[in-house]
Amino acid sequence: MSDADHLELPDDDRQRLGFLVVAHGLTGVERVNRLRDGSRSETSAEHSWHLALMGLVLGDGQGLDLGRITAMLLVHDIVEVDAGDVPIYDEAARLAIEAVEAQAAERLFGLLPSAGGGDLRELWEEFEAAQTPEARFARAVDRLQPMVLHWSGDGSAWAARGVTVAQERAFAAQIAAWWPALGPVAEAVVDDAAARGMLRA
Amino acid sequence: MSDADHLELPDDDRQRLGFLVVAHGLTGVERVNRLRDGSRSETSAEHSWHLALMGLVLGDGQGLDLGRITAMLLVHDIVEVDAGDVPIYDEAARLAIEAVEAQAAERLFGLLPSAGGGDLRELWEEFEAAQTPEARFARAVDRLQPMVLHWSGDGSAWAARGVTVAQERAFAAQIAAWWPALGPVAEAVVDDAAARGMLRA
Repeated sequence: MSDADHLELPDDDRQRLGFLVVAHGLTGVERVNRLRDGSRSETSAEHSWHLALMGLVLGDGQGLDLGRITAMLLVHDIVEVDAGDVPIYDEAARLAIEAVEAQAAERLFGLLPSAGGGDLRELWEEFEAAQTPEARFARAVDRLQPMVLHWSGDGSAWAARGVTVAQERAFAAQIAAWWPALGPVAEAVVDDAAARGMLRA
Repeated sequence: MSDADHLELPDDDRQRLGFLVVAHGLTGVERVNRLRDGSRSETSAEHSWHLALMGLVLGDGQGLDLGRITAMLLVHDIVEVDAGDVPIYDEAARLAIEAVEAQAAERLFGLLPSAGGGDLRELWEEFEAAQTPEARFARAVDRLQPMVLHWSGDGSAWAARGVTVAQERAFAAQIAAWWPALGPVAEAVVDDAAARGMLRA
């Protein structure tokens, strides 16, 4: 095993590299979502990239701090390196995992030098709390992305779980509550998926 | 095939969704780099996420516009959706691909509404030109990431290509030329990799 602690560098640089190496483990976390061609699961690293890109593109002209949004979306799933991914359809598991994720945040952001680590941890907490405009927009995008991916792909992840129109309408309502301008986008996607028989009635 | 053109939405929203669906194809572009455990290739989407995170972490305190850097790193490889990935070790192929990448930028950023599409395209051009401080830092991070990944993993991608200490020292020098503060980080990684016999003499 390689270890950044061996490197001839100032403490801060070694800690930053150490964190970045561990964080790369997000490439090993497989989500329920499939790629559009259904060939394999999307990884949490890929999901985080696509979210941040969605934030850039959909956040344009919304009067938001896009740099803060992309930063938030880049780190929002880091805790999954330790805690794994919990599907949005499994409400009980999502509640149960909260303590595990808090522990993961403690360990992972704690790898960074105190200043920078605190900044990233604050971004993660801001996302979780969903109070600021940037966090609410980011949460809406995080909920919209799987919907867009399932709809634009072969729909196998929806079919495998028997996801219903009502479930996706509830997600669209949550998206609208977090960021009203994204509500119609989510509703149009659900309408089209429903019309094409991609969701259970 | 799903198609954002069918959605009951204003043109701008349909175009943005259409772009985001096509851009997700970056999850299907496999790089030479392997994951740290050697299990499979890293995808360009995963690479882009890790780069943007590296930009956030390593750019702290450097007097840079971090939002611009992360945005640049999120879009810098989008052209690979059409053009594919060219390894950094293949200098001839990298020159040959330039026209193909320019065409890809034309098509892909052209999917977006004129305002937003132009913004992302400018970010891509800024990264390619490597003139602004943000672009030079971003280029340095893009060169540093594979080095860190190979070094922190099983080294199989280096071994498969017979990469030498001299090649990696040349990359470290390029990183230092783009962003001097990252030079010592790259050199420390190469020194450690060389000392551990991960690179050919």
